Amino acid sequence: MTDPDSTSGEEPGIDPNAFRDDDDRISPHWLERLRAFLIAGRSEDIATVMQPLYSSDVGDVLESLDADERLLLVRLLGENFDYSALTEVDESIRVELMEELPNAEIARGMAGLDNDDAVFILEDMEQVDRDEVLAKLPTFERLSLKRSLDFPEDSAGRRMLTDFIAIPPFWTVGQTIDYLRREVDLPDEFYQIYVVDASYSVLGTIPLDKFIRAPRTTSIESMMNTNLVLVDANEDQEEAARDFERYDLVEIGVVDESNRLVGVLTIDDIVDVIHEEADEDIKLLAGVGDEDISDSTADTVRSRVPWLIVNLFSAVMVSMVIGLFNATIEQMVALAVLMPIVASMGGNAGTQTMTVTVRALSMRELDGRRLRRLITREMVVGLFNGVIFAVLIGLVTWLRFNNLQLGGVIGLAMVINMAVAGTAGILIPLTLDKFKADPAIASSVFVTTVTDVVGFFAFLGIAGLWFGLF
Amino acid sequence: MTDPDSTSGEEPGIDPNAFRDDDDRISPHWLERLRAFLIAGRSEDIATVMQPLYSSDVGDVLESLDADERLLLVRLLGENFDYSALTEVDESIRVELMEELPNAEIARGMAGLDNDDAVFILEDMEQVDRDEVLAKLPTFERLSLKRSLDFPEDSAGRRMLTDFIAIPPFWTVGQTIDYLRREVDLPDEFYQIYVVDASYSVLGTIPLDKFIRAPRTTSIESMMNTNLVLVDANEDQEEAARDFERYDLVEIGVVDESNRLVGVLTIDDIVDVIHEEADEDIKLLAGVGDEDISDSTADTVRSRVPWLIVNLFSAVMVSMVIGLFNATIEQMVALAVLMPIVASMGGNAGTQTMTVTVRALSMRELDGRRLRRLITREMVVGLFNGVIFAVLIGLVTWLRFNNLQLGGVIGLAMVINMAVAGTAGILIPLTLDKFKADPAIASSVFVTTVTDVVGFFAFLGIAGLWFGLF
Repeated sequence: MTDPDSTSGEEPGIDPNAFRDDDDRISPHWLERLRAFLIAGRSEDIATVMQPLYSSDVGDVLESLDADERLLLVRLLGENFDYSALTEVDESIRVELMEELPNAEIARGMAGLDNDDAVFILEDMEQVDRDEVLAKLPTFERLSLKRSLDFPEDSAGRRMLTDFIAIPPFWTVGQTIDYLRREVDLPDEFYQIYVVDASYSVLGTIPLDKFIRAPRTTSIESMMNTNLVLVDANEDQEEAARDFERYDLVEIGVVDESNRLVGVLTIDDIVDVIHEEADEDIKLLAGVGDEDISDSTADTVRSRVPWLIVNLFSAVMVSMVIGLFNATIEQMVALAVLMPIVASMGGNAGTQTMTVTVRALSMRELDGRRLRRLITREMVVGLFNGVIFAVLIGLVTWLRFNNLQLGGVIGLAMVINMAVAGTAGILIPLTLDKFKADPAIASSVFVTTVTDVVGFFAFLGIAGLWFGLF
Repeated sequence: MTDPDSTSGEEPGIDPNAFRDDDDRISPHWLERLRAFLIAGRSEDIATVMQPLYSSDVGDVLESLDADERLLLVRLLGENFDYSALTEVDESIRVELMEELPNAEIARGMAGLDNDDAVFILEDMEQVDRDEVLAKLPTFERLSLKRSLDFPEDSAGRRMLTDFIAIPPFWTVGQTIDYLRREVDLPDEFYQIYVVDASYSVLGTIPLDKFIRAPRTTSIESMMNTNLVLVDANEDQEEAARDFERYDLVEIGVVDESNRLVGVLTIDDIVDVIHEEADEDIKLLAGVGDEDISDSTADTVRSRVPWLIVNLFSAVMVSMVIGLFNATIEQMVALAVLMPIVASMGGNAGTQTMTVTVRALSMRELDGRRLRRLITREMVVGLFNGVIFAVLIGLVTWLRFNNLQLGGVIGLAMVINMAVAGTAGILIPLTLDKFKADPAIASSVFVTTVTDVVGFFAFLGIAGLWFGLF
């Protein structure tokens, strides 16, 4: 299955010339062939081309197809469709597919999944449909899924695998190896072994690489790591992600209220969480909310309008500030021509500071001392940049309008607005954070409102005073 | 070492009441005590309080201290200072510390590190200092570090661990276990075993969880996974990160040009790469480049000024467009009061579309069909939002200025600018991507320039025509 031409040695189980193009996107030829098979209803050929794909590849294929083609693909694949691919697609696609497929078919698909994948898919379903699917599952799976679904959304309990290796402390390495070799019903993948007491309280953990190197006679108790890192099942997945990053973990035990081990989180789920979290910050800063490229036009409009309305309020307010200087502008139209420059530069400088602050907050990098240092730095930077750009724009204005005084006025307004931009850029996200609001959501609009208002007010106000236009 | 009060069961090796506060930041009390020890030069007490910390915690402590305190801490800790903590701090702090510390001391610190951590620290040093440090290391370490440093910056070869478990295919599980138990010089952590031929070409891999469950007599060849995922040492770390995510890996083999296994990448390095990558997008979109909160004021100014200069050009250009309508504004000052609204709404709508596009590009989500779908969607969304906000702002303007026609003019300009914003928001990042430029860097300024120019031009132009002001 490896590609002899590839300089990177090998590619995973697929011929990259066939499935992915040089840009790492799904090859158009491959997709066209699949489409032809779909139209012709050739389910065996479809199964053959889909078979070597990893579930993330199948997810990519689903995202590349149109809605009707997606449904057709799942139907024609039948039992060969790997439902774990649904964990790899945008939410809107998952929801849409789950609505189209019969619940009995979904239940069959769920039965083959790891419980974390099944929970991930089921949590987006309507309550009625979800109950119907759960009712069709074997008792043990049903109870285990229900327990996970009882934990809050985005909690460690929702994301955990309920299968893990737990052994008593009085065993030896030899006994444990024999148990692992004998026992059939073990998790597919595991990176550490949990040592528990009779009530499933965790006493210690043993990473596999350490375990495998110990002689058979070693007692488990003597070799286990008692420096425990565990997370509460009710804890937010982002907290768990921080533990993974901080302590370079690949697996972490999840415990319930009574401190019993109920599951494990593995790094692959956490990688997704880290991605989502950073993605969320980017999107919230731009006011696009929890949006995917697969969302429908109507959903997209719905998700963006609220932010634009907030911005409209801000813009109207700013315009009212300008309105105060009606008479001033009437006497000197050059002011109208120049005023957006001051506002725009302030907006950009403020956004720079705000972005650094929002990221530092979401990565918990700001304690007392660092915070004071950052505030001081940003104010100084604002002032410094203010002076630099005051001189630049002052010169440009002087030359353009042949009016030295106008250059002085715009320069002065620029210094003021850049200094305010630095201050607002840091204080606004900090204040939102203090009041437990997500600074990524609302900072942008507040910062640009401040820099617009101050920019226009300072420039028009100073001009009015200077030139005696009031 | 566990905390009996904590509902999350336990915390890792440290008493959270002492080291971290409820917000997961370093407790001010803990820091004050450390500062007191530093001032008093009580190195033993310092070693005692630092000893239970993980290296990421030590990194956090370094970031919380002032520059002189940091140096003092490292000096007073002496041999007890764990250099791997330097991989957990901002680059500016690392560089500054390395400049202050004697090279002999750094060489001593490097000797105790995993080679990926040592490379991470050494790559930021001046060539002269680096050579001096390398010269002081034992031959084997020196050669291994030099080889890693020969690979391009941010490549898999730079991030790889050069320690791994490689065995021949003709061994049995039993032989391998005996080898692992006997051999002292093995990597600290490993998740899979590599099966190689005499020239170190990878024949297969065996994950530990599968290996541990196989009977002693099983032949390695019969159980190895030949569906190989390997990365080229010269490949960018972001490409490797994509493989980890796509195939849910925890470890991946790294091969050189002649296909020899030269090292492994583990998931903890990749988590950092994923973080950096997302962080980069956010910061580039805001024009703050590769900046940390620990950067000095001067570095910060230097990093931000270029972007602000680009924005100044854009703002001056926009102002020249407004200048074209000097006479129009003179006759109707209300236009100057209203014009920023059209530009601001367009800028926001354009930024929304641009952000979604930039993210989709950096996550490789856009192939032909999805791209066409996204373009269509964004244009329709732009038009749709344009109509919604045209009506809103038209009404507001009508009421505010008691001028229905002015409401009509601003509404019309709004529809035009929002539609243009949607189109520019998607086409600009796509074009940059086509020309192999990073769309995150330059899209923002292009998009807002377009929406400003079109916003002012459309509004003032339509108003001029409508009211016969030209």
